[in-house]
Amino acid sequence: MIPTKREVEAACNRVKPYVHNTPVLKSSYLNELSGAEIFFKCENFQKMGAFKMRGATNAILQLSEAQKRAGVVTHSSGNFAQALSLAARNLGVKAYIVMPENAPQVKKDAVKGYGGIITESESTSTAREQEAERIQKETGATFIHPSNDKNVILGNATSAAELLESHPDLDYVFTPVGGGGLLAGTSLSVKYFGASCKTIGGEPFEVDDAFRSLQSGKIELNDTANTIADGLKTFLGDINFPIIRELVSEIIRVEETEIIAAMKLIWERMKIIVEPSSAVALAALLRDKERFKNKKVGIILSGGNVDLKNLPF
Amino acid sequence: MIPTKREVEAACNRVKPYVHNTPVLKSSYLNELSGAEIFFKCENFQKMGAFKMRGATNAILQLSEAQKRAGVVTHSSGNFAQALSLAARNLGVKAYIVMPENAPQVKKDAVKGYGGIITESESTSTAREQEAERIQKETGATFIHPSNDKNVILGNATSAAELLESHPDLDYVFTPVGGGGLLAGTSLSVKYFGASCKTIGGEPFEVDDAFRSLQSGKIELNDTANTIADGLKTFLGDINFPIIRELVSEIIRVEETEIIAAMKLIWERMKIIVEPSSAVALAALLRDKERFKNKKVGIILSGGNVDLKNLPF
Repeated sequence: MIPTKREVEAACNRVKPYVHNTPVLKSSYLNELSGAEIFFKCENFQKMGAFKMRGATNAILQLSEAQKRAGVVTHSSGNFAQALSLAARNLGVKAYIVMPENAPQVKKDAVKGYGGIITESESTSTAREQEAERIQKETGATFIHPSNDKNVILGNATSAAELLESHPDLDYVFTPVGGGGLLAGTSLSVKYFGASCKTIGGEPFEVDDAFRSLQSGKIELNDTANTIADGLKTFLGDINFPIIRELVSEIIRVEETEIIAAMKLIWERMKIIVEPSSAVALAALLRDKERFKNKKVGIILSGGNVDLKNLPF
Repeated sequence: MIPTKREVEAACNRVKPYVHNTPVLKSSYLNELSGAEIFFKCENFQKMGAFKMRGATNAILQLSEAQKRAGVVTHSSGNFAQALSLAARNLGVKAYIVMPENAPQVKKDAVKGYGGIITESESTSTAREQEAERIQKETGATFIHPSNDKNVILGNATSAAELLESHPDLDYVFTPVGGGGLLAGTSLSVKYFGASCKTIGGEPFEVDDAFRSLQSGKIELNDTANTIADGLKTFLGDINFPIIRELVSEIIRVEETEIIAAMKLIWERMKIIVEPSSAVALAALLRDKERFKNKKVGIILSGGNVDLKNLPF
């Protein structure tokens, strides 16, 4: 069930030539504010601006030559659409991207810019899944799910693996949780490369399906998704949930105002651009900061793709 | 006249414990766009968010114990006000800051946050100079000019010194030019630590006093200052101008639209926050990019203090 240490190590070696070993930044202001010593792993500096590049690259690299010739397909309107497009282009593979017809033009343009072949569908999840299936059948392309795919999870694990290689004595690693691919991957690296380290997820109250899933023991959904953290609106899957259930210590939920405040702190104090989803992990730490006093805490800043024309502050 | 290599090296050793050795970032997108290989020295990640921390720290560290006890004074409404306040606090020294009464509250708050003691004056340069003189007389504090001070220039030189230590084979180093303290300091490090490297200044057409000063051989002023690069509205001084005249190869002027475009590129593509003045150096490179094709170019990103509520895009 749980991928092995050897599998995580193999993923690290596999993706290394294709992704950035992103920098780890510190902020004395945020250390003082939180009482913890925070190590920010900057996936916002990753190629195409998000950790998703890691999972997409690892998944494509695991395909056979015949599979590569037929291409890959996914449905996503977010960072994974861009990540799969760029990872595929880097490896000489075709990427078919199913996007809802009402997706923002700027996101469609980004996918096109990375060479993705866009097919538009209605915006229901049934419609986009049907469209992806049709493409699979017609082209023989391999479907790669944005978060519920073992090789995507293993690729995502490489960020925390790098972080723990340079900072092996972390007490905690925080990530945001949406579809669960980053949280699951991170928990694997924490298990295998941490000394005495725990994995914690940050999640908006507005879409707290992962929190409720850990409580109920089965995958819960969200009725609404009124969060600014647009990367976290999806829910867990049958491949990542068992990993999260076994390896993640807890999920801390945060209010929308806390997300915006954390995002503003990162922008103003660290001078780096992160998307709202990334700020959720810091918001979770700050919400419960008393518990993490004097601890060494890694935070995966998951991405930096924001619309500068539409900022929450 | 021109400070010696030994003086620059001494400044490097002197400020080292008090400033960040800021990271150097690269962007494959901007390399492709420019045709050059660009190494961005990120002073926006410096303490208080700008290179000015280096000069302020070096200047205070050169004072005698008696001078330190009496404090330091400057007039500035920009980054140097914050830099001198923080550098002074770090060294247990009082900092008196003369700010125009109409300076934005956010800037006054920042200075107060770093422990600076603010005196307000009318916003003319005569009024603020008189106020600084009054404080000098009353307190015995030492006046430190934001850019036209040998020890400030030597401190500023340490950024390019670090950049050239990690990348000794740069062909060019670009900085913005306003008061001339960064450009002069950078040209010293380029002279002493570069292999075959040249220093180039970027300057807005709207305040092209440095460009005209190099042409006429004397310090020129600006009649107006309608530039978004608010850190570059000041003019050269009698201490930095001789250094610039001897060591700076040229100054490239840029339009306001080019500054905003370069700033947006850095934000969107590098996911880092820089102030408009910093973008002037990249704008200068991009304006004349044909000349710098296949060259290794360092760019000092001078600072990242912007008002997020007032962005030009």
